[in-house]
Amino acid sequence: MKHERRGIDLLNLRDKARKAGAAKDGDPGRRPDFERLLAPRTVAIIGASNNPDHLAGLPIKFLKNAGFVGEIWPVNPNRETVQGLKSYRSIADLPSAPDAAIIVVPAPLVKQATKDCAELGVSFAMIFSAGFGESGDGDEQAELVEIARQSGMRLLGPNCLGCFNSESRFYGTFAIALEAGFHSPGNVAMVSQSGAYGEQTCFLARERGIGIRYFVSTGNEADIEIGEIIDWLAGRDEIDVILAYLEGVRDSASLLRGLAHAQEKGKKVIFVKVGRSPTGAAAAASHTAALAGDDVVWDAVLRKYNVYRARSTEEQVDIAYAAARGLFPAGRKLGILSVSGGFGIQLCDAAEEMGLEVPPLPGSTRARLAELLPYGSMENPVDASGKATGQPHRIGESLQVLAHDRSYDAVVGFIGTLPLVPAIGKPIEQWLTEAKDAFAGRLVALCLIGDPETVRAYEAAGFLVFPDAYRTIRAIAALSALSGNTGERDKAEASATGTAHPPSGTAMSEHAGKQQLTRTGVPILPERLVTSSEEAAGAARALGFPVVLKICGPDILHKSEIGGVLLSIDSEEAAATGFELLIERGMAAGHAREKLEGVIVAPMARAGIETILGIKNDPSFGPVILFGMGGIYSEVMKDFAVRLAPVGVDEAEDMVRSVHAWPLLKGIRGEAPADLAVLAKAISDLSVFAAENADRIAEIDINPFVVWKQGEGAAALDALITLKAD
Amino acid sequence: MKHERRGIDLLNLRDKARKAGAAKDGDPGRRPDFERLLAPRTVAIIGASNNPDHLAGLPIKFLKNAGFVGEIWPVNPNRETVQGLKSYRSIADLPSAPDAAIIVVPAPLVKQATKDCAELGVSFAMIFSAGFGESGDGDEQAELVEIARQSGMRLLGPNCLGCFNSESRFYGTFAIALEAGFHSPGNVAMVSQSGAYGEQTCFLARERGIGIRYFVSTGNEADIEIGEIIDWLAGRDEIDVILAYLEGVRDSASLLRGLAHAQEKGKKVIFVKVGRSPTGAAAAASHTAALAGDDVVWDAVLRKYNVYRARSTEEQVDIAYAAARGLFPAGRKLGILSVSGGFGIQLCDAAEEMGLEVPPLPGSTRARLAELLPYGSMENPVDASGKATGQPHRIGESLQVLAHDRSYDAVVGFIGTLPLVPAIGKPIEQWLTEAKDAFAGRLVALCLIGDPETVRAYEAAGFLVFPDAYRTIRAIAALSALSGNTGERDKAEASATGTAHPPSGTAMSEHAGKQQLTRTGVPILPERLVTSSEEAAGAARALGFPVVLKICGPDILHKSEIGGVLLSIDSEEAAATGFELLIERGMAAGHAREKLEGVIVAPMARAGIETILGIKNDPSFGPVILFGMGGIYSEVMKDFAVRLAPVGVDEAEDMVRSVHAWPLLKGIRGEAPADLAVLAKAISDLSVFAAENADRIAEIDINPFVVWKQGEGAAALDALITLKAD
Repeated sequence: MKHERRGIDLLNLRDKARKAGAAKDGDPGRRPDFERLLAPRTVAIIGASNNPDHLAGLPIKFLKNAGFVGEIWPVNPNRETVQGLKSYRSIADLPSAPDAAIIVVPAPLVKQATKDCAELGVSFAMIFSAGFGESGDGDEQAELVEIARQSGMRLLGPNCLGCFNSESRFYGTFAIALEAGFHSPGNVAMVSQSGAYGEQTCFLARERGIGIRYFVSTGNEADIEIGEIIDWLAGRDEIDVILAYLEGVRDSASLLRGLAHAQEKGKKVIFVKVGRSPTGAAAAASHTAALAGDDVVWDAVLRKYNVYRARSTEEQVDIAYAAARGLFPAGRKLGILSVSGGFGIQLCDAAEEMGLEVPPLPGSTRARLAELLPYGSMENPVDASGKATGQPHRIGESLQVLAHDRSYDAVVGFIGTLPLVPAIGKPIEQWLTEAKDAFAGRLVALCLIGDPETVRAYEAAGFLVFPDAYRTIRAIAALSALSGNTGERDKAEASATGTAHPPSGTAMSEHAGKQQLTRTGVPILPERLVTSSEEAAGAARALGFPVVLKICGPDILHKSEIGGVLLSIDSEEAAATGFELLIERGMAAGHAREKLEGVIVAPMARAGIETILGIKNDPSFGPVILFGMGGIYSEVMKDFAVRLAPVGVDEAEDMVRSVHAWPLLKGIRGEAPADLAVLAKAISDLSVFAAENADRIAEIDINPFVVWKQGEGAAALDALITLKAD
Repeated sequence: MKHERRGIDLLNLRDKARKAGAAKDGDPGRRPDFERLLAPRTVAIIGASNNPDHLAGLPIKFLKNAGFVGEIWPVNPNRETVQGLKSYRSIADLPSAPDAAIIVVPAPLVKQATKDCAELGVSFAMIFSAGFGESGDGDEQAELVEIARQSGMRLLGPNCLGCFNSESRFYGTFAIALEAGFHSPGNVAMVSQSGAYGEQTCFLARERGIGIRYFVSTGNEADIEIGEIIDWLAGRDEIDVILAYLEGVRDSASLLRGLAHAQEKGKKVIFVKVGRSPTGAAAAASHTAALAGDDVVWDAVLRKYNVYRARSTEEQVDIAYAAARGLFPAGRKLGILSVSGGFGIQLCDAAEEMGLEVPPLPGSTRARLAELLPYGSMENPVDASGKATGQPHRIGESLQVLAHDRSYDAVVGFIGTLPLVPAIGKPIEQWLTEAKDAFAGRLVALCLIGDPETVRAYEAAGFLVFPDAYRTIRAIAALSALSGNTGERDKAEASATGTAHPPSGTAMSEHAGKQQLTRTGVPILPERLVTSSEEAAGAARALGFPVVLKICGPDILHKSEIGGVLLSIDSEEAAATGFELLIERGMAAGHAREKLEGVIVAPMARAGIETILGIKNDPSFGPVILFGMGGIYSEVMKDFAVRLAPVGVDEAEDMVRSVHAWPLLKGIRGEAPADLAVLAKAISDLSVFAAENADRIAEIDINPFVVWKQGEGAAALDALITLKAD
């Protein structure tokens, strides 16, 4: 999906920006094919143990017990058979090249095994053995990749847990949680850099009745990275929901390609990205040797592709459970019916906290419910009252009335512990499950405590079931967030009026930076760079008094600290004297005269709202744009918004609206709103400029960017562009 | 525990303040005694049904099945026996006055039943019947209370679910979740305004292995309120943890008395207080007809008594589970050991997010762990590495090493799904449970997935067990917060230098307000109130130019809007002219000349950090004090702190440190810090003044309160005191 306007193609530009920023680029031309990794016809286990409970014995045990449909070839130099299967002395002895090979030999033997696999023509080798990149031995790991590349073999791991496919019952893994049972081929997949995280989350998902069809543990990611797996999963019709666990990324290009593909295909992606905290980020970096990255940038990346970022495993599983149902609310309006007034209020609190609305009942619905629940309270949340338990079918019927009201996008029915009492719970269950067709296509979550059988019965009828009020609401809010996942975000159009490229070099003076920016569309005040006191006087007269004088040079980063700014200059004489004074101060601060470009003469800006626009060039993801309120808001209050560059004007406006201090710009106490159109255009233009010049720009800091009232515009009063070293 | 200084007794003052603020006062002289309610020797069930599954039949069924130790007297005019027990035709026919009577008759018959109980001399009547205050019929409910009061009978309900005592097996309730089983007499109690919330939470607690000894559902609280129950529970040695669910409160005095008693006795109190959101608060108000109250004030109240406020039921149960263990970390330093690097990072992220620290390993501990876990990563979080599963005892031993390191206040051991594999899980379990004495007194939480038997075995050895990393950390953070629960908060001393009482009337002018404040210790700039242009000129000369002129009168609330402020007056002439101008403007704005006290002449304040100090008199809890940063920080960014008044200087400083913009006051970019001592003293003094005059003051708004650099002081530049109508 491309949106072009005035020569700007946001998607291509984003790709270009990312490439310039990324350390490594991968091979963008070809979609990865992991069919033979996840559905091999033959699998060899190099180093297979005869002991089915030994880690090196688990894969064969799992493959046999699960009923893998393909052939299993153990390789063990010391045995004729392994776990009852014919064993091969060496890789070279195998009947043919297997689609997949699992390498579970000790670390020192891995290299030879990898070589042998490559020579035989194995398609995919999964190295379970640890002791490579994660423990600092990156050279050895790089050698493995080199060996594999030469034959076209792809590597999963090392230090990974393998993968499984519950459809073909291929369990090429030693994930011990499988001892508790195998999976069912539903519409959910999981990919994880951490094997332990992945297998535990799969286990919890299974306990919740979620069908994990594919699981891939990528471990050290010497070759195959998580983004490629997501890319492949995005192309699978049988998959609707993708769970991922990530610590860091080496190849941001492949991750973004995977996320973009998933978004394009409407897959719902639910991440746990750890390393949010400083210590956590340090631990993540040491754990995978990948770049954990700036967490704010990660938020921007995940937001861009409408990925849901869960903070806890419980949350990730809850959202996966809800998303797998396939119903996503179009809006944020929630109807609540509860047999407990107390829980009704708790649901309502949680809903408003999470940005859902709990609007009043429409009259007709209210009237219908009042008939059904004569003792209830006909507000939203509807309190059915405990008396309704005397006529259980009325609870079901009321829920149907509420679900049929199209003014609600989703409905929660709280029946709590009623299922524990069959005399009450069963009639409700019967009524609701029999009426399932009447609920078709409507998102209805039930909050209840019941035995697994009851829960499954409700689920089979299409209801979502949660045991906790807060978690119910969190899941609905997540579905609402995920419902935007249709690629619509890229609709925002760029507004840049032209292109402009900065010169080479490593720093630009304020004046040069501003001239650069004004060519991209970012407004500045008219200013003159003068090189003599006479010119200063003339420029001041021409601009109109009062003016401000500022020392200017590429090495001057903190003008104010060296007394390099003179305000309220109100005569030609003062301008001339000021020029001399500033040059003196510049030299006194250690700047050679030839490094001083001169003095900027600019009109005094009238008061407005001070904001900050900034660009950082993230080593993984390329340029990101920051918008925040000026002064201490951004610095101290952390009140800013960050997005991957470039952004269109719509997304820029969304950034502006997302900061806490937004009311200041919208206008408080009856004040006129600020000039949002100009602000949003400036943000978009700056982001386009940064993306177009991602290979040259290290950082841009526009502080302050003053915004005046609607129709009055805005202007960058200062700007610092730092270029990458050549 | 009293702390006196210069005549100020904070606790008494707080009590006085609360009384003045509260709508109703209760009977503070006597601690309530609910012994006979919760451990009755005899209980009558008025309206008992012979059908054990009917709501009116459930109490007898439960009492019989649980093996209640006392006598059960059904009252039913139509039957000789009820559920096999001798039944009585009427209340008057009972052998004697029972300790407790349960009234489950239809609403229209409740009044007569209450009368009969009162006449017989019943000590406690529990009215399960609904249809009173909650459905708008407050008069009928008030009559019930009147009837009860006359005989000294106490009422629980109406519209309540009764109570239980798992020790004496008294289940005087129709809580249907008991169908799933009875409770065990642990050290936890639950009190809930919502019956359904209470019984479900008890059920969930029971599932978690928590022993709920007492449960009380207070329903409409016509008589007995939740605070009284908390007060009684606070005096019970067998109770350590009190869970409460609250929608609103009628008698704030009894609630505060209960909370203070609980704090004094070191009980850990864990609240769910609903009505946090606007719609939720409206629903809460309509549900209980009690005042839901301002949520910010509720936060202040709960903070004051070190009550933990949970947002979800799952959280409340988790914290109860952890608190019941009885170990509370002295500090916030956490040691983490994980068999999964990934989960280790997730634990670390959660810890730092929740304000816990994850400091590096001390050298000796690092060395010892490196021996035990040669493949692991010796950072905190310690990554034991998957290889450790080959020698399971090393995991247990490593955890012990970490737990023995006294530089950590708590330790988390993540073993994930290992317990699912007996060959690995059992040796770890065996090692750790056998070493339990070595862990005595140390707070160690295990995060694992295991069968109930495994979980119970770990718990029996003293470990806390959680299934989710995030929830593990949340519980430890909560224990850390609860560990301050020793009444220490009241140590903060008042600093007020004297008392000062405002005059009567309904409004005070800025000048009168400031004069009032300065007598309480809140600093102001020297200023003069002048009533002629000559006086204005003289005052300006005396104060030193430039000065500011401000129109002054009790009815003038928004000076700036009527042009009532003149800045930078720099001559006597300008002062004289300014006086006339302001009086004209005041009159033009509709203020009668005799209502204008005159004009304030004050020095222009030099720039400083603008803050806001405020007082609101909450209808339930009396005066609360607000501190926030000036400008839009408080209004738009909601960056402020609120506490019940009065606060001592320590607590005032804590308020200042708690706002997000605190770095501004602390000094950013090498700036000198603001004068915190003067600021904290002013907050404390203002709060003491408000508490002392809670019966007269409706509101105080000091905006701005300018704070200069350390040693330079601070001053209220404007002040508005609104008095209560006489």
